[in-house]
Amino acid sequence: MSLLTHYRLCPFSRSIRLALAELQLPVEFAEELPWEWRPEFLALNPSGDLPVLIRGNGVIITGSYAISEYLGEIEPHTPPDEIATTLFSGDNTARAEIRRLVDWFHGKLDREVTREMLRERLHSRLRSELVSQAPDVDLIRALRTNLRYHLSYVNHLADQRRWLAGDALSFADLAAAGHLSCLDYLGEVPWESYPVAREWYQRIKSRPSFRPLLVDRCPGVPPPPHYDDLDF
Amino acid sequence: MSLLTHYRLCPFSRSIRLALAELQLPVEFAEELPWEWRPEFLALNPSGDLPVLIRGNGVIITGSYAISEYLGEIEPHTPPDEIATTLFSGDNTARAEIRRLVDWFHGKLDREVTREMLRERLHSRLRSELVSQAPDVDLIRALRTNLRYHLSYVNHLADQRRWLAGDALSFADLAAAGHLSCLDYLGEVPWESYPVAREWYQRIKSRPSFRPLLVDRCPGVPPPPHYDDLDF
Repeated sequence: MSLLTHYRLCPFSRSIRLALAELQLPVEFAEELPWEWRPEFLALNPSGDLPVLIRGNGVIITGSYAISEYLGEIEPHTPPDEIATTLFSGDNTARAEIRRLVDWFHGKLDREVTREMLRERLHSRLRSELVSQAPDVDLIRALRTNLRYHLSYVNHLADQRRWLAGDALSFADLAAAGHLSCLDYLGEVPWESYPVAREWYQRIKSRPSFRPLLVDRCPGVPPPPHYDDLDF
Repeated sequence: MSLLTHYRLCPFSRSIRLALAELQLPVEFAEELPWEWRPEFLALNPSGDLPVLIRGNGVIITGSYAISEYLGEIEPHTPPDEIATTLFSGDNTARAEIRRLVDWFHGKLDREVTREMLRERLHSRLRSELVSQAPDVDLIRALRTNLRYHLSYVNHLADQRRWLAGDALSFADLAAAGHLSCLDYLGEVPWESYPVAREWYQRIKSRPSFRPLLVDRCPGVPPPPHYDDLDF
C-alpha cells in the first residue's frame, strides 16, 4: 500500500489525490501542515513541498511533477472503463499539450493567484505567526483580477474541447481542478461569469475521484454553501 | 529544422539550449524579450513563458517542462558517445529523482532567487518602465541569503553523486546550470564557499553544449571576468 503525505487545501496535493483516485490506486493518507517545516517531514522531502508519495516498496516520490509523471508511466490498477486510463494520453504532441497546461496551472496560476490567495485568506487564519496580520486588501484585489484572466482562459479551453487538453480527461484537468477547488473553498471563483468553465468544473466535480475533496473542511474557515453542491 | 524562441538570460531557455546541444539536435534560434509581451509571441504561447520550440513539422511545444519531456521521449540524433543519451535516464525511480531536482531548480530556486534577482539586477537595466526604480537592496540581500541555501544543497548533491541526480548527466544538471549560469553572469554566485558545487559547475561549463551560453552578453550589463573562464 502506498502512503500519500498531503495537505487538504494544497492544490498540488489535490491534483495527486485526484490522479490516484482516477487510476484507482489504493493509497493511505497522512496530513502535513505545509508551514510547520517539521524536521521529520524535511527529512522526507528537503524542499518542504507537498505532496510526497511513499510506495509500498519504500520508494519515495516527491512533488506533483515527479509523482504525476511516475503515475503516468505505471499501468492502471484496474481495467479501463470510464476512468482515465492514463494521465498523459495520446501521441507526444498531445502529451506536450497536456504538459503545457499542467505548467500553466501548477506554475502560472499558482504564481499569479493560488499561492498568495491561500496565504492571505487561509494560512493567515491558521498559522499563529500570521494571525495578527491584517489581510492585504490591495493584494487580494490584484489576485482576484488575475484569477478572472485565468478563468477566462479555462472558459476558452472548455469551449474548444471536451476536456481542457483535448478529448480525454488528463492531468491538465486534475491540475486545474486542484487549484480551482481550493479557490472555490474560499468562495473566490465567480463561476457565474464563466459558464463554460463552470460546466467543465461541474463535470469533474461529479466524478467519484472528487468526493473526498468535497468533504474536506478547515476548522474556523468554512467553505461557502455551494462548495460541495454538485448542481451549484 | 527546429526553431527555438528563447531569451539569452532566461534560465528556462538556457536549460533547453543545453538540452538541444547535448542531444545534438539541429536547431535555429530566435530571441524574444520576455517582458515585451508582443502579440505575435503571445499568439505562439499565450502564457508568455519562454522558451518555445517549433519543430520542423510545425508542431509547437511551449515551456521547459513540456519541451524537456518531449525531448526526453525522442531518440538522440547521433549515436551516443560522451553525450547524454537521454535527459531522463534510468528506471522510473531514477527518473523521479531527476524530476524532483528539476522541480527544485525550475520551481523552488526560481521562486526563491532567480526570478526576482533577474528582475532587480538585469531587467531593471533593460526595461524602460523599470529603469527609474531604485534597486530594492533589502530584497537583494534576502535573495542572496536564499541563494546560499541553494548552493549548499548543490554542494551536498555534488558531493554525494557524480552528477546532481545520479551517475549520469541529466536534465536536473541542465536545469541547475540554467539558473546558476544566469546568476553567475550577474556575479551573484559565491563559488569560493562551495568548492564541490564549483567543481560540478566547472565540469558542466567545460562541455561543448555550454559554449554558446558563455558568449552571451547583455548590452550595458557586462558579466564579471570569470563568467566565461573555464578555470574560474
